[in-house]
Amino acid sequence: MSWKISSYIQDPDQALIDESLFFTGNGYLGVRGNYEEGVPEFQTTIRGTYLNAFHDSVPISYGEKLYAFPETQQKLLNVIDPQSISIYFGGEQEEERFCLEEGKFPWNGRYLYFDKGYSERTYEWHSPKGKRINLTFKRLVSFRDKEVFLQYIDIESDNFQGPVRIVSTLNGNVANYVDNADPRVSSGHANLLTVTDVQQTETISYVECETSSTKLKTACAASYHLSQHYNQINDLTTNAIESEFTFQFADHATFEKKSIFVDTLRHGDDLAASAFLLQTKLADKHFRQFSMEQEIYLNDFWNDADIEITGDADLQEGIRFNLFHLLQSTGRDHFSNIAAKGLSGEGYEGHYFWDTEIYILPVFLMTKPELAKNLLFYRYSILDQARQHAKEMGHQKGALYPWRTITGTECSSYFPSGSAQYHISADIAYSFIQYYLVSGDFSFIKECGAEVLFETARLWADTGHFDGDCFKIDAVTGPDEYTCIVNNNYFTNVMAKYNLLWAAKCYYLLESIDSAHLAKLRLKIGLHKQEVEFWKRAAEQMYLPYNEQLGINPQDDTFLQKAVWDLQNTPKDHFPLLLHYHPLVLYRHQVCKQADTVLAHFLLEDEQELDTIRKSFDYYENITTHDSSLSSCIFSIMASKLGLKQKAYDYFLETARLDLDNTHGNTKDGLHMANMGGTWLAIVYGFAGLRIKEEGISFRPQLPDKWQGYRFSIQYQGRKLHLDVGEKQTKIILLYGEPLSVRVFDQTYPLERGAAIIIE
Amino acid sequence: MSWKISSYIQDPDQALIDESLFFTGNGYLGVRGNYEEGVPEFQTTIRGTYLNAFHDSVPISYGEKLYAFPETQQKLLNVIDPQSISIYFGGEQEEERFCLEEGKFPWNGRYLYFDKGYSERTYEWHSPKGKRINLTFKRLVSFRDKEVFLQYIDIESDNFQGPVRIVSTLNGNVANYVDNADPRVSSGHANLLTVTDVQQTETISYVECETSSTKLKTACAASYHLSQHYNQINDLTTNAIESEFTFQFADHATFEKKSIFVDTLRHGDDLAASAFLLQTKLADKHFRQFSMEQEIYLNDFWNDADIEITGDADLQEGIRFNLFHLLQSTGRDHFSNIAAKGLSGEGYEGHYFWDTEIYILPVFLMTKPELAKNLLFYRYSILDQARQHAKEMGHQKGALYPWRTITGTECSSYFPSGSAQYHISADIAYSFIQYYLVSGDFSFIKECGAEVLFETARLWADTGHFDGDCFKIDAVTGPDEYTCIVNNNYFTNVMAKYNLLWAAKCYYLLESIDSAHLAKLRLKIGLHKQEVEFWKRAAEQMYLPYNEQLGINPQDDTFLQKAVWDLQNTPKDHFPLLLHYHPLVLYRHQVCKQADTVLAHFLLEDEQELDTIRKSFDYYENITTHDSSLSSCIFSIMASKLGLKQKAYDYFLETARLDLDNTHGNTKDGLHMANMGGTWLAIVYGFAGLRIKEEGISFRPQLPDKWQGYRFSIQYQGRKLHLDVGEKQTKIILLYGEPLSVRVFDQTYPLERGAAIIIE
Repeated sequence: MSWKISSYIQDPDQALIDESLFFTGNGYLGVRGNYEEGVPEFQTTIRGTYLNAFHDSVPISYGEKLYAFPETQQKLLNVIDPQSISIYFGGEQEEERFCLEEGKFPWNGRYLYFDKGYSERTYEWHSPKGKRINLTFKRLVSFRDKEVFLQYIDIESDNFQGPVRIVSTLNGNVANYVDNADPRVSSGHANLLTVTDVQQTETISYVECETSSTKLKTACAASYHLSQHYNQINDLTTNAIESEFTFQFADHATFEKKSIFVDTLRHGDDLAASAFLLQTKLADKHFRQFSMEQEIYLNDFWNDADIEITGDADLQEGIRFNLFHLLQSTGRDHFSNIAAKGLSGEGYEGHYFWDTEIYILPVFLMTKPELAKNLLFYRYSILDQARQHAKEMGHQKGALYPWRTITGTECSSYFPSGSAQYHISADIAYSFIQYYLVSGDFSFIKECGAEVLFETARLWADTGHFDGDCFKIDAVTGPDEYTCIVNNNYFTNVMAKYNLLWAAKCYYLLESIDSAHLAKLRLKIGLHKQEVEFWKRAAEQMYLPYNEQLGINPQDDTFLQKAVWDLQNTPKDHFPLLLHYHPLVLYRHQVCKQADTVLAHFLLEDEQELDTIRKSFDYYENITTHDSSLSSCIFSIMASKLGLKQKAYDYFLETARLDLDNTHGNTKDGLHMANMGGTWLAIVYGFAGLRIKEEGISFRPQLPDKWQGYRFSIQYQGRKLHLDVGEKQTKIILLYGEPLSVRVFDQTYPLERGAAIIIE
Repeated sequence: MSWKISSYIQDPDQALIDESLFFTGNGYLGVRGNYEEGVPEFQTTIRGTYLNAFHDSVPISYGEKLYAFPETQQKLLNVIDPQSISIYFGGEQEEERFCLEEGKFPWNGRYLYFDKGYSERTYEWHSPKGKRINLTFKRLVSFRDKEVFLQYIDIESDNFQGPVRIVSTLNGNVANYVDNADPRVSSGHANLLTVTDVQQTETISYVECETSSTKLKTACAASYHLSQHYNQINDLTTNAIESEFTFQFADHATFEKKSIFVDTLRHGDDLAASAFLLQTKLADKHFRQFSMEQEIYLNDFWNDADIEITGDADLQEGIRFNLFHLLQSTGRDHFSNIAAKGLSGEGYEGHYFWDTEIYILPVFLMTKPELAKNLLFYRYSILDQARQHAKEMGHQKGALYPWRTITGTECSSYFPSGSAQYHISADIAYSFIQYYLVSGDFSFIKECGAEVLFETARLWADTGHFDGDCFKIDAVTGPDEYTCIVNNNYFTNVMAKYNLLWAAKCYYLLESIDSAHLAKLRLKIGLHKQEVEFWKRAAEQMYLPYNEQLGINPQDDTFLQKAVWDLQNTPKDHFPLLLHYHPLVLYRHQVCKQADTVLAHFLLEDEQELDTIRKSFDYYENITTHDSSLSSCIFSIMASKLGLKQKAYDYFLETARLDLDNTHGNTKDGLHMANMGGTWLAIVYGFAGLRIKEEGISFRPQLPDKWQGYRFSIQYQGRKLHLDVGEKQTKIILLYGEPLSVRVFDQTYPLERGAAIIIE
């Protein structure tokens, strides 16, 4: 039940979207769901294979380049294409090539299995000349052997016997997708990979490429496994190897292509040696074993991460789809993180944003903490670049994380909604604090987190200034990109406050727990105690804008004085506004692309009275377009908090199937990873009302009217808790770990291992 | 006395600056003061010849291109190079080429004559082999025959006789200057001209070029005139013609090269025909006659425009230098205006800014009104593009003038300090009103001005909004580019108010004077009377920020809440700040690149109490870097108004010799035209305290302590007034025109033609 998504032979537009929806990946390698047999020339396809963080560096052009504008940016590259396999049936005159444009399909189906971890296309094909052939294409990117992409083809026929010819290509002649009209997609530099080696051994095809500027290399080694005796001819060109397999088909045959990807970031300089070694090591492992391992891996994942919904199959599909793709996209090494589109497409050029920390990290933090820790470790590993970036941006001290990056340097070329989003540094600090609160693991904070907290706190100390008694932060951009470069953005200020407070708290904690370590760290970064005192003072006196008359937190100092955008009379086809209005028009109005103050009220709910939060929600809801995919999930969570059940559910609907239903119209460029995390947040923080704070864990569970129930598990400080919300009762079970107190609504319950709290 | 500037053989850095200082031009054609004989390869030179408004269009690259960002910009092109002339003395073995790097120069001098209208380089050269040769190079760009650039070389020797070889080039292989490190200079697209024709008749060399994108063409036809019998050999290549003249030199010879420039904007499609015709027409006109005509033209100009200063030769030189170069740079047709660098260099890519209206137009308005009228007519001629630009920028109605342009389309690629400077529309409206007040010529207002006023008023009506009783204007940038995209910039609001008021006033005036014309105009632009009423209301209720506590007008809504930049502790080599700090750092602080509120207090002094103006002056003076060359003159004027005599004089010093002393370090890229106008303003509006308002003309003359006196004339409503300020008295004479009342300080005097007011 609901462990897969399905599709059928599609019109070209949906087929393009399906390329994203059916992608397969493992956090290192991602392959879009393109067709082995290709598409007709007139049909748009974004044929892509990506290695997380495998990028080139390209110059940024500016009409006017001002001081400290980044000179280059990184770009995730489309790497060697292993996907192409054409199948020809019949001898010379009779020969027919399998494709979706010719013949008839009495039956067909396409699936991506979240439990089995592979995708499948299966067809009953009646060829124009009358052959009846059943074809099934399976593909899998191994969670266990990260380098492996496996294609498995099963061929059956009850009326055809004779010669079959399979032509498989390993193609280094690849390009990135370009769209000049959409700022969310790259507008140039399509061809950045050059093939540096093409070789063929008896069993292995090998293509190696190098990037133009970063001089990173990647290679793919492909091997084959057929059920029949066959003849193989390899045709090597400058950029590709085409292998032709011919055999006599009786009634059944299978064909397997095992492509192994390596790159110089992870596999050292001798890529050929690495790739050949891996091929040898895995020579006897075939689809059956890979898929069994896949199932084991996923069984474990779902055991921790699944959210079951009773009573709504579509949403059940949506939430699992989202979680599965998050798992497929999350980097597992310190080179990589989670790109805005994961490994499903090229939108936003494979860059990492705050999406990771605010929208996705909590999911892993509470289901697969080791993945979350790795994501944080990535941020620690780029701390030096963040320090450098702060210097470039005119700061004496501190670390300013880049708004978008792969390797740690700033890649945004439009700073008002790029580098100016200083809040990313507080967001990252926030996620280290969340990690500590959820895991209780202080050693990681000691080793990595403290330095991040200190350096980001320094950034705020240097950016802000005292205006009378108030500590103010000017000329930054908050999360809402429809209002840029403002003073005292509520979100930024309150997050900076938290950052400063926790940096000080962490300092004193470290002082009491491991003062030798603190001394070492202080020496390393030249930290003075007066700075820590300043952090405390700045945090305590942080200015948080509040409007008496409306009883809300203004988004920034002047937001409320602007004209309100007339959303009612804005034509439907003028959304998203950013594609139809000059930024100045947006900046001139009260109109939000996404949750900003409302998000701040979620992340730091104790900073304001509930009444202010409620009034702010109402106010901002009226002027928010949700043109960003990061918005609806937050409104859903806050609607839940405010008891607006139907609203919470409606917003949840927006998020749960955003990509499946292509509601933002750009799923072709890749899946919206942050929104996928947001779906989980909307259930766990929203409907279930989970909060984890210093004082402990709490829930305020509620059940959407349309559901019969939902249940999920979370990890909390070495424990596993299971929450089961039904129509009659809510049950919380401590599956393992030490006893604890759990607050549910306004009451605190002790909970022993194996025991349950039942609230009726 | 002081009718020229001088220079001598210079080090390479100063030689590069001299190329700008010694440029010759006439508003159509400008030739930088490069050496005929060239410079050594290691030496930087910006070799340039420009035709006002002759441009190509180049794509603007953006890392992220948002909606309505301009896709192309224009670029003034360096056109065909007519300057190169090499002179060789002596036969084969003996031959020596004249250049500044070899031999000795017992005497040399370089001059630009403001009264004669030509430049001169003159040398006594002792060649390495002992030839003693006197060489004088004169060059002139004719004010009367705008297409003509004339070079005249005089050669004398008392110890050399023998063969002389002169090689003159007409070179179409030219490029623009590029500097990637300075946003004020172009960073690409150096080569945009392609030679389309090279031909040689018996007497005329002809090279024709075409631009890459706009497909404009320009051509240059050169002819020669020698005092000796000579032999000529022409060598035609794809891009150039090299003409070699050989003759036997006795003791004296002259060589003249007459280059005639034409282009398809002004001369129709058959450029060859036009150029040859002009060469024929001017065949018998040589240096002597051209220079006589030049002198007549300039005599007339100085008669109207000169400012005489007694007691300070340096400043006298400075002011005449400035006025002369303004005259050389001002476009005389409706294609052209005054580029930021005039025709003296390529800085700011030959674009026209508000510099014209606010800094330069008043100079011509009161000395050569026909030039001023043409500048305004240019703005009228691009009104349609301004209407189009307003639409692109999201406005239902109105005209938004481009921040920088040649043909009328927006060419700024960094909108926060480009398109966001909406005030340019009010500045242009202001200058139409000034034209009316100074000239009294309502017919031009009727034909052109009214439409500009109405459409710019509409822009404000559409941009602003009522917030309670206040009409507010959000998300624009004022003149100060160190604070961008703000709400209620005082300058913008007060200028918009004036624009709105005068649009309404003009409407009612037109209604009473020529209602038929108004009806036609209303029909043309679909104007409703309610709009006019709205303009009045918006103007009357325009919000002008005022800070009670400080008693000043804040630059914008939040300016005063920001941290004050610590100018005292900013290293000297960190100025201009824009080349050393990211814009966000600048935006985050109270720091001004230039006069903003202070400029508003000059342009519209009646909007505030003198006390507010004084306090504002003091406040902003402390935080203004004058990194813009448009700043000091305004501070000088306002210091005069406030009775700060010494300060007024000190600021004046900054402006009067800015280019002569290269105080901004970038005179090599061209002269600072607006500042040059500012010098005039600082004397006339500043020291002399001239104001022209609806209620009439007034003066508040004062004399800087270091001067013995100064005098100048102005045109006012068909009259010519002469002001003579001395140590003992001020004398105002009505040289011609109807009698009038003149207010001096606080008293009003009647003045008859030929009579004088004397104030002791």
